[in-house]
Amino acid sequence: MFEVPKWAFEFHGHECPFMPIGYRMGTLALEKLGVSRSKNHEMHVFSEMGIAHPQGCMEDGMMASTGATFGKGLIEELYYGKVAAIFWYPKKGAVRIALRNAFSDLLSPHEFFKYRKKGIEPSDIPHEIRQDIINMVLRATNQELFKVEMMPGFEYHPHRGSFNKEKCEICGEYVFERYLRVKEGKKVCIPCSGHNNDEVTRPKVK
Amino acid sequence: MFEVPKWAFEFHGHECPFMPIGYRMGTLALEKLGVSRSKNHEMHVFSEMGIAHPQGCMEDGMMASTGATFGKGLIEELYYGKVAAIFWYPKKGAVRIALRNAFSDLLSPHEFFKYRKKGIEPSDIPHEIRQDIINMVLRATNQELFKVEMMPGFEYHPHRGSFNKEKCEICGEYVFERYLRVKEGKKVCIPCSGHNNDEVTRPKVK
Repeated sequence: MFEVPKWAFEFHGHECPFMPIGYRMGTLALEKLGVSRSKNHEMHVFSEMGIAHPQGCMEDGMMASTGATFGKGLIEELYYGKVAAIFWYPKKGAVRIALRNAFSDLLSPHEFFKYRKKGIEPSDIPHEIRQDIINMVLRATNQELFKVEMMPGFEYHPHRGSFNKEKCEICGEYVFERYLRVKEGKKVCIPCSGHNNDEVTRPKVK
Repeated sequence: MFEVPKWAFEFHGHECPFMPIGYRMGTLALEKLGVSRSKNHEMHVFSEMGIAHPQGCMEDGMMASTGATFGKGLIEELYYGKVAAIFWYPKKGAVRIALRNAFSDLLSPHEFFKYRKKGIEPSDIPHEIRQDIINMVLRATNQELFKVEMMPGFEYHPHRGSFNKEKCEICGEYVFERYLRVKEGKKVCIPCSGHNNDEVTRPKVK
């Protein structure tokens, strides 16, 4: 049976099936790309999940197994609403891993989701029910779980980091240069500038 | 001396000062709001950091201490380029915590950043240098580290989750309903639709 380290559950905060699914996706991606867990800024993950979907929990598992964490800027969402992700490791290539429909259909009728659909949070679901659905994930083979596709033509150019920062001339707080704006000739932060990042493209209507 | 659990470093992947800074910010936010670590979907974090900034590492610490993880959809970026975040807990309120300029100035000349500015990754910096700068963070008082501001008027309305999904009529993969699009009368996923989420607002020019 596949094992997910205890600290990954500790990090995630509750027992659910999708964190382990993501953990296994990440582990399989490391194998397919022939790399080890990223200590620094190596692997990038492009999760195909989007906003407000419970199954996004998979992303916590992906971060835990690959080391491509949100804080290190290595996981982003593509907003496609799918239980899938592209794992890219510079100079090693990219692989897309998606949860099979068949496995999704196998999980769906489980009692765990009856509780979830009533709005009951995972940590309030009886322990044996949580454990049972997690074991379904841990006992399955990679073949049963995942559709795997190598992506030889994949390209991505990460943004460059910079340590340059200056104090906002209104509030006095440090701001990384990329986010300084100008207001009445002063270099200021976005909140002090009164401009939102998206107001240049989208009118505000209700 | 403040203690950060070992698993938080394990999750993050390397030893650096900003993960512990974020961990302490999150811990202080829990105190200020009078809440415990979020097992499920309670606390939301709005990090003021943005793309490609090494100090974003703080977000891994915030997730670890608060339980407001990326996978659970509870941490987002505001793209202001600041070492600061707003922590919001429904019905308990919101608090903004920012790293003080003075503490930032105290850290900046440290040898750790001389290595980082040469492009040397944290795990390749000598252990005693890493440990020294981490100890600066762990030994400081909250007062030395942070500017804290309660935000009584703070409002946020999270997106509603939904379990509704359908198979894309082209590729056959499951898609959460929010992300289904229509192409020639078929319900399809975004990649199969040929439309990008942002193409409606932004022309592609080079």
